[in-house]
Amino acid sequence: MLALRRFFTKQQFIRNYASGKKLLEIAEDKNTGIHIISMARSPVNSLNLELLEELKTSLIEVQKNNCKGIVLTSSLPTVFSAGLDIMEMYKPDIKRFTAYWRTLQDTWMTLYGLEIPIAAAINGASPAGGCLLAISCEYRVFVDGEHTIGLNETQLGIIAPQWFIDPFVNTIGYRQAELALLRGSLFRPNEALNIGLVDELASDKAEAIQKCQKYISSYDRISKQARNMTKLRLREKLISWLQEHREIELNYVKQFIQLANVQKGLHAYIETLKQKQN
Amino acid sequence: MLALRRFFTKQQFIRNYASGKKLLEIAEDKNTGIHIISMARSPVNSLNLELLEELKTSLIEVQKNNCKGIVLTSSLPTVFSAGLDIMEMYKPDIKRFTAYWRTLQDTWMTLYGLEIPIAAAINGASPAGGCLLAISCEYRVFVDGEHTIGLNETQLGIIAPQWFIDPFVNTIGYRQAELALLRGSLFRPNEALNIGLVDELASDKAEAIQKCQKYISSYDRISKQARNMTKLRLREKLISWLQEHREIELNYVKQFIQLANVQKGLHAYIETLKQKQN
Amino acid sequence: MLALRRFFTKQQFIRNYASGKKLLEIAEDKNTGIHIISMARSPVNSLNLELLEELKTSLIEVQKNNCKGIVLTSSLPTVFSAGLDIMEMYKPDIKRFTAYWRTLQDTWMTLYGLEIPIAAAINGASPAGGCLLAISCEYRVFVDGEHTIGLNETQLGIIAPQWFIDPFVNTIGYRQAELALLRGSLFRPNEALNIGLVDELASDKAEAIQKCQKYISSYDRISKQARNMTKLRLREKLISWLQEHREIELNYVKQFIQLANVQKGLHAYIETLKQKQN
Repeated sequence: MLALRRFFTKQQFIRNYASGKKLLEIAEDKNTGIHIISMARSPVNSLNLELLEELKTSLIEVQKNNCKGIVLTSSLPTVFSAGLDIMEMYKPDIKRFTAYWRTLQDTWMTLYGLEIPIAAAINGASPAGGCLLAISCEYRVFVDGEHTIGLNETQLGIIAPQWFIDPFVNTIGYRQAELALLRGSLFRPNEALNIGLVDELASDKAEAIQKCQKYISSYDRISKQARNMTKLRLREKLISWLQEHREIELNYVKQFIQLANVQKGLHAYIETLKQKQN
Repeated sequence: MLALRRFFTKQQFIRNYASGKKLLEIAEDKNTGIHIISMARSPVNSLNLELLEELKTSLIEVQKNNCKGIVLTSSLPTVFSAGLDIMEMYKPDIKRFTAYWRTLQDTWMTLYGLEIPIAAAINGASPAGGCLLAISCEYRVFVDGEHTIGLNETQLGIIAPQWFIDPFVNTIGYRQAELALLRGSLFRPNEALNIGLVDELASDKAEAIQKCQKYISSYDRISKQARNMTKLRLREKLISWLQEHREIELNYVKQFIQLANVQKGLHAYIETLKQKQN
Repeated sequence: MLALRRFFTKQQFIRNYASGKKLLEIAEDKNTGIHIISMARSPVNSLNLELLEELKTSLIEVQKNNCKGIVLTSSLPTVFSAGLDIMEMYKPDIKRFTAYWRTLQDTWMTLYGLEIPIAAAINGASPAGGCLLAISCEYRVFVDGEHTIGLNETQLGIIAPQWFIDPFVNTIGYRQAELALLRGSLFRPNEALNIGLVDELASDKAEAIQKCQKYISSYDRISKQARNMTKLRLREKLISWLQEHREIELNYVKQFIQLANVQKGLHAYIETLKQKQN
């Protein structure tokens, strides 16, 4: 599929990718030069192989075009992202799972180390991998409402990878992070603000995007080179860690998700989701 | 003494250990399945070789029985634990001191890496090694009153080991930790709460235990395996550090406590304690 | 120049150093035994080779005399220190620049690892390298007013070295530090207090010095040896990092400042400064 990409322009590619399904919407704000990347995989922006691949590619391309910055948000009304697609882990085809996990690692390293400013306009629920996307941006604006954000992996019987944990600790501090990770806590907007998991609240998505744009524009008079190298100096340790451990981790995760009790837990969780939908 | 253990049941062992002195009391709350481990070495729960050995053994055994969680507290009315027994360091027999320090290291690694939930109901003074026990649990409830908690080693002319310092930094953050460690600060309950050194206050020991039980029960619906592995992922770095440095550290501490001025300081401190008792 | 030092007493040396220019004023408070080191290089205490060399030497000598502690402040009315002297980096003579950067590294390692208590009475603007001096002390009192403090390197198109970043993170926590470093934020006294970048405010320089002295006196009854070793245990990791990386870093900085766009940025900045002066 990557080979095919050469025959398309960027916009065509995005439109045509993944058998015609539109997984991401990219728009450029002509006034500000800021790009809005909206995840658009119904119903809950589950991060499957195709969405991650497209997200990674888009981040790299927008960055290459030297745009002013990116707002990451969701095209869905109540969900930012539900996190990793459980169907990639349930009864996995190991060949696809290997590609999946590598793409997840690559997407995170691209996002976390992105040179241009990137802020998350979190317009709905943002558990687990959804929270990872948010904390890997530089700035977070959370739309007020009934939804929550957090690394709730333990509630699903799974374990947040080390590179989910470390940026989480960096964002809210070790003590609060440990408590939240053990409990799999999900935080309502006010709680998330108080604990420092998000930087601002907004009353709706438009305001959230506006606040993210304001954040990005705060760098208008800052040297890009100096900013990027400072960001790298702060974040490269975690990225290097994953680069060095990626195969070890892949093998560990492969074994872990094939454990009978993990598959049983995922099965039970999927049944719960099905019942909710009915 | 460890060889003898094989001939006793756990409860017998605990009752008979250390020449008939009861150093720990262990009770199981039949309603919750939570075990209460109470340190009971009068007058101040000084952590000598026998108490530490018993604490370590009890933690391992209770964990092996797959119980729901542990509340660590004290049977004494006004003291949680006064910390390391100064008599183990004053005019030390080096053979016993070697066993002592290794047991201290082992006890800490067991406590800090414990798989099941453990919370401290701190029902009195908790300086130095007493504070270490508390910050190595997952959650801390401090009974309100005139007593204090903190790593006050510098006040005694000694130095908190690296593995006392690191969990302290993790609990209250680097800046507050540095200031408190240099000063040997002891915090009253309200101060300890404000600085994040404890998580909650309680009006008496019963309420403290109740709040600890509530903390432990918050994991009732969380996968044990996922919780344990997440905890290990957060804490294994400090445990690995000590595992790798334990002999180096032992030798360092052996030399340090044999310094003339350190012995002189300990002597002066013991004289002060004697005068207080008269 | 270092060879000449042997023919002078300390006070003579300080008076005569650097062709008769007085770069530092050192006074001992006879009541408290605390030394006040005041930077006195008009107009803004730019840290050039000579001032840094003198600061380093003075710190070592005062410490050698086993004095009770040091207050670091400025003799200028509105500036603590404007940071690294841009003229050391603009169109640099590489031989001098090499000596300059090594002296900067040495001065920082001396200051950050100083055994005796040292507090900063920040009586004016304290950007970039000025902020580094302040956060490398143990305690900070900021005189209230219109001035600011912060690591604003990105605003000048340069990058704060790793050993500026790490103590900054330790002081205010990772999240706030990342945001401030990317933006090159400068904080007014109240903001600096709220974010934890300074420990206290004062209404004027005299009060700031008094509060610093009070901080130093809080160690009157603390074992010096225990205090020093505890401080080292907290700070040695960052010092060791620089010791191991100093030549690598020197070479990196040498190359960086010789980049055309960096020199261009410095030129533009110098022009701005000139216009301000007219």
